[in-house]
Amino acid sequence: MPHITLPDGIPGIRGLFEFRPDTAKPLCELANTLLHAPNTLTPGERELIATYVSSRNDCSYCQESHGAIAAHHLNGDDELVLQVKRDFEQAAISEKLKALLAIAGKVQRGGKSVLPEDIKRAREQGASDIEIHDTVLIAAAFCMYNRYVDGLATLLPADQAVYRDRAGMIARNGYMGAGLPSAK
Amino acid sequence: MPHITLPDGIPGIRGLFEFRPDTAKPLCELANTLLHAPNTLTPGERELIATYVSSRNDCSYCQESHGAIAAHHLNGDDELVLQVKRDFEQAAISEKLKALLAIAGKVQRGGKSVLPEDIKRAREQGASDIEIHDTVLIAAAFCMYNRYVDGLATLLPADQAVYRDRAGMIARNGYMGAGLPSAK
Repeated sequence: MPHITLPDGIPGIRGLFEFRPDTAKPLCELANTLLHAPNTLTPGERELIATYVSSRNDCSYCQESHGAIAAHHLNGDDELVLQVKRDFEQAAISEKLKALLAIAGKVQRGGKSVLPEDIKRAREQGASDIEIHDTVLIAAAFCMYNRYVDGLATLLPADQAVYRDRAGMIARNGYMGAGLPSAK
Repeated sequence: MPHITLPDGIPGIRGLFEFRPDTAKPLCELANTLLHAPNTLTPGERELIATYVSSRNDCSYCQESHGAIAAHHLNGDDELVLQVKRDFEQAAISEKLKALLAIAGKVQRGGKSVLPEDIKRAREQGASDIEIHDTVLIAAAFCMYNRYVDGLATLLPADQAVYRDRAGMIARNGYMGAGLPSAK
């Protein structure tokens, strides 16, 4: 049961968006800029970073919802998403993305865990300043979203199919409408 | 030295705001809504929660900058800010704020650390749903801001007076302009 009274039956962060529209707006805009807006990292790569951090924070709602969006971008490859969560160093992803996931994992532990050698590895694989910046901020932002969703004990969807049903919509349209009642 | 090339000499999150205006906008709007906009929790109380979480995350820039803003709201009472960081249960603050700080400390560890008894304590001291919500989101948001600032190894101000000089401006005007060059 959620720790506060939320709109009936709306799971995860979506119930919180309905409860407090004033904070939903910047939270959706931040997610949209980081995960959906044009970027040299693909939406699939960025969603994998979000999913990986959410799994490290043990947040079921976020890892399932962003994992489904990542899989949608990756032509339905659910197995790749699972492999990234399990051991990304062995996954069929680029060496650059592995280096960025390693940075994201450090950020999840704490900002000061990121060391010059982590940055060096990413640069050697071709990562730019803005890609390193966005990786750190995606990881940091999911340390917020995960704590927000679990810190208020929001509900999980009754049906796992909800994740997949919403994933296509968000992959196409982005997050700007994700806090609006019309996006339910 | 910062991990990426940031505008010369601009410390902490301000250099990151200049580097990436697209993410600065929602990050400033979120801070403004949570810390500055009208609320039944005073700005001083909300800044104390932000300062406390930043100190638990060992983020020097955020705990000094928000500690200075908190002190500004609290008639310059730097000692109270230090006492909240050291042991808020012994500080001269309301029982309601102590209960909310206890929730914030749980969120800092991880969302699932927040237990029904933590919420019960806050309710018994008169905390409303929205106050509990905002406490959890302030704490979660500073788990992001702190990781963002330290994960990219941003600089500290060369002069401690910078914190106090900016505190009054932010206490008066809020955070909406905090990412703009004119706010330097």
